[in-house]
Amino acid sequence: MSNNELRKDYILNRWVVIATQRRRRPSDFIRAKREKKVSSCPFCPGNEDMTPPAILVYLKDNGRLIKDRDHKGSRHSNWMVRCVPNLYPAFTHPIDDKKRVEDEFFKSLPASGHHEVLIESPIHDEHPGTARIKQLILVINAYIDRFKDLSSKEYVKYVSIFRNHGSEAGASLSHAHTQIIATSILPRILKEEMEGAKEYLNETGKCMFCEIIRKERESPRFIWENNSFIVFAPWASMHPFEFWIFPKRHQSTIMDMTPKEIDDLATTIRTCFGALRRLLSDPPYNFAFHMIPDEHFHWHIEVYPRLAIWAGFEKSTGVYINVFSPEEASLNLRKAIAEEESQIC
Amino acid sequence: MSNNELRKDYILNRWVVIATQRRRRPSDFIRAKREKKVSSCPFCPGNEDMTPPAILVYLKDNGRLIKDRDHKGSRHSNWMVRCVPNLYPAFTHPIDDKKRVEDEFFKSLPASGHHEVLIESPIHDEHPGTARIKQLILVINAYIDRFKDLSSKEYVKYVSIFRNHGSEAGASLSHAHTQIIATSILPRILKEEMEGAKEYLNETGKCMFCEIIRKERESPRFIWENNSFIVFAPWASMHPFEFWIFPKRHQSTIMDMTPKEIDDLATTIRTCFGALRRLLSDPPYNFAFHMIPDEHFHWHIEVYPRLAIWAGFEKSTGVYINVFSPEEASLNLRKAIAEEESQIC
Repeated sequence: MSNNELRKDYILNRWVVIATQRRRRPSDFIRAKREKKVSSCPFCPGNEDMTPPAILVYLKDNGRLIKDRDHKGSRHSNWMVRCVPNLYPAFTHPIDDKKRVEDEFFKSLPASGHHEVLIESPIHDEHPGTARIKQLILVINAYIDRFKDLSSKEYVKYVSIFRNHGSEAGASLSHAHTQIIATSILPRILKEEMEGAKEYLNETGKCMFCEIIRKERESPRFIWENNSFIVFAPWASMHPFEFWIFPKRHQSTIMDMTPKEIDDLATTIRTCFGALRRLLSDPPYNFAFHMIPDEHFHWHIEVYPRLAIWAGFEKSTGVYINVFSPEEASLNLRKAIAEEESQIC
Repeated sequence: MSNNELRKDYILNRWVVIATQRRRRPSDFIRAKREKKVSSCPFCPGNEDMTPPAILVYLKDNGRLIKDRDHKGSRHSNWMVRCVPNLYPAFTHPIDDKKRVEDEFFKSLPASGHHEVLIESPIHDEHPGTARIKQLILVINAYIDRFKDLSSKEYVKYVSIFRNHGSEAGASLSHAHTQIIATSILPRILKEEMEGAKEYLNETGKCMFCEIIRKERESPRFIWENNSFIVFAPWASMHPFEFWIFPKRHQSTIMDMTPKEIDDLATTIRTCFGALRRLLSDPPYNFAFHMIPDEHFHWHIEVYPRLAIWAGFEKSTGVYINVFSPEEASLNLRKAIAEEESQIC
């Protein structure tokens, strides 16, 4: 008999079928690699002219860290992290607002905003699952710098920092990089999260996210924690091996982190992505920060390994079928973390 | 300068970036085929024992059509269309309701319902883009029969009829087949459509969908029509070459079709999927019927060719980036239909 469950997300009106009948072992999710390393990677050192000038560069200068940007026509080459405009931006700097269409059925406005690429390391393959902690600290600092700059712009309503890993997860280049998109609308999912949080606070006087953390820490979905962060497989995981990373202290965006918390986030990322890589042979995945500069919000990272296909049912209904339970995902990830921890430097 | 547009769906709070800067030709979407034909296909004639007994079979009997089901242990072999339970169902026949969890954050209920596979033809490769019209008429009749049966069950709140074509679109077997899932919840997207339709009717006295058809028929997104159906690329297409098929006459589900409309739907499906196949070299796609047995609803089919990847941004925000405008998609599909029409029999 079936023990399938239909689970509702904490906040969103989003249901997931936990269908473990279609049981799989972690190794069933391992796929043949399709990635090819391009001969001249535009993100590798020496090829800086293949990208637009950098908006932000962290430079090595006799052991000191210097923040700068590329200046007209020139390109820095002694960089540790570089952030450049996306050559094919989905959102672009606003020109005018004349293109707005407010017809009954045909609503349209200019896709105003920014679309950037953050190159995480001069080393082509320095991905979160294998990176040095000190490099990840630089990457997180660069996230904070770009978030601060973009979210201060008057027309920006949301800043999405996300990472596509592997060609099957939408990464067109294999050099370690993150994308940043600033939009002039607050996206649906974030809006629903924000509204849920406000409603919960009004009713209970408590932060909904803090409560979720407290409950999941005691649940079979708990994966890992350090002083500042907690990691768990969410109750209504949409994807096999999905996990979420939360700061324990209530804070609305990454701008609120202390230096100690930044160090701890680097360790958290290295540990969890190293374990995911170890467990599933470097699977494709997407991750994204959820953050809104509002005291009601509690920022976090959602990680979606790309091990199943959203097909006709998911796309047309907004209901997702997940063939691996979060409880089993948590168990497997805990084991992989135990093996991974000795490898981290 | 960028002409990117951020478009809102007619009804849903779902925004799409039309980002034509990243311009592509139709041929750019053609991918190498990965499908392999299995040696013993469980859906091919002679292998009926590889599936559970059929819930519905259309049989050939001296030129007459007979509807039956497989009886205990036995399997019909002279079938034209067969519908069988899915061996790995996501939703299953309800046993009891004890498994319901109503915690503040941990909501859960049994995934009650049905999950079936409709085998569209004894011919392995008789997909909608190449099928004989007379075979498609049988398939549509089988959809109607299964929809009627499933939607009459007291615990069923929604019946999704959908098709995954090609392994990249989630089809695990290449034999022409459709899936049917009956659920005990009304999915989010359908709920939003229904609420939008009711609200519009209350405000204007008109059917929102009828109005959309009327406007799109005159738009650059119009693709094709016959007496009973109209096809267009929707205003806020989430996917390159997305198209929607609507009956012109207001009707809430496929149960309301006249025999003439069934014939016309078969021709519409054959024409549009034949053109899609011709234009993009048989691309992977998903399609799904949207239908609710309520007079406010107006059923339709949404077709999502699988030519781009929903990555970190789409998955975390619910905002979609589409690199091909619906106006261009319509232009290309119109041309392909003109070439395809002479091939249809």
